[in-house]
Amino acid sequence: MAIAEICLFPLGTDSPSVGKHLKPVIEVIERSGLKYELCPMGTVVEGSIDEILNLVKKCYDAILESGVARVVISLRIDERTDKKLTIEGKVKF
Amino acid sequence: MAIAEICLFPLGTDSPSVGKHLKPVIEVIERSGLKYELCPMGTVVEGSIDEILNLVKKCYDAILESGVARVVISLRIDERTDKKLTIEGKVKF
Amino acid sequence: MAIAEICLFPLGTDSPSVGKHLKPVIEVIERSGLKYELCPMGTVVEGSIDEILNLVKKCYDAILESGVARVVISLRIDERTDKKLTIEGKVKF
Amino acid sequence: MAIAEICLFPLGTDSPSVGKHLKPVIEVIERSGLKYELCPMGTVVEGSIDEILNLVKKCYDAILESGVARVVISLRIDERTDKKLTIEGKVKF
Repeated sequence: MAIAEICLFPLGTDSPSVGKHLKPVIEVIERSGLKYELCPMGTVVEGSIDEILNLVKKCYDAILESGVARVVISLRIDERTDKKLTIEGKVKF
Repeated sequence: MAIAEICLFPLGTDSPSVGKHLKPVIEVIERSGLKYELCPMGTVVEGSIDEILNLVKKCYDAILESGVARVVISLRIDERTDKKLTIEGKVKF
Repeated sequence: MAIAEICLFPLGTDSPSVGKHLKPVIEVIERSGLKYELCPMGTVVEGSIDEILNLVKKCYDAILESGVARVVISLRIDERTDKKLTIEGKVKF
Repeated sequence: MAIAEICLFPLGTDSPSVGKHLKPVIEVIERSGLKYELCPMGTVVEGSIDEILNLVKKCYDAILESGVARVVISLRIDERTDKKLTIEGKVKF
């Protein structure tokens, strides 16, 4: 099980407020059935590497379909084989 | 006011569990007085660019003092001049 | 055609020098047949979203097989539909 | 001596081609006197943590002065205390 953070930056939109382009992406994440958490700088999901990469592909499709000509995606995945990672466990110190 | 996410990856530690090296960093963020939120993939802070960059410097000092020989920091800052960004506002869609 | 940067950080290795864990990853990228460039902070590849995500999966498998217990991958993809992106074009201003 | 990669994403510009907003940033990096390399997904610089963070501040000022209302900066710094990092050394495996 890995934890990933997905951030999308639509470029060349008419307004610096990009929420309307991100809404369809969040719906895709919601529909994926994966456990997720909306964070201020990105959305965090819990899943296998395959589940995460499949989801990234769907997020891409959704944002391009929303009419964005250019998008930068920033993805960070944390995976370990010796212990189970969870969204909750990652904020305990 | 900008929103930033700070993530630190200590390399070459004896264990894949790196929490003990991150604790002093979180204390530094706590002591900074800046508004912050611990997220699963990094810590989010709210402040001016100067406040954020000063805090990054202090986080670096703290993690190197904890005995780590190598560290990768990943920092993402979102700044806009037309509207106030807040940690709460960033998760509303 | 998208341009992506792939960075891998193995955690909990015995030494802060992690090159030996990255070598099998670079061989995977080399064998992919995708155009790529080794850069100081990551490897840049040119391909479709599907090709890039498939490659990321293979990089993961390679680094975990190298004996690393934990790995953080940082991936950034730039995709635009109105114009062809190339590795060379991205450094022209 | 640390190695850093600086990437800037201007949001809400009229065009998905953002090069004109990045030009003044590259001039700032050029004038800094720090060793640097333009890479397809960001600009890599070599310097102390203080030099890098000061440069980031100047890059911010330059891009905001270019008339961008919102900018996301992505910064990754690699620092180690046991060995000198260099831009050239980072692409040798």
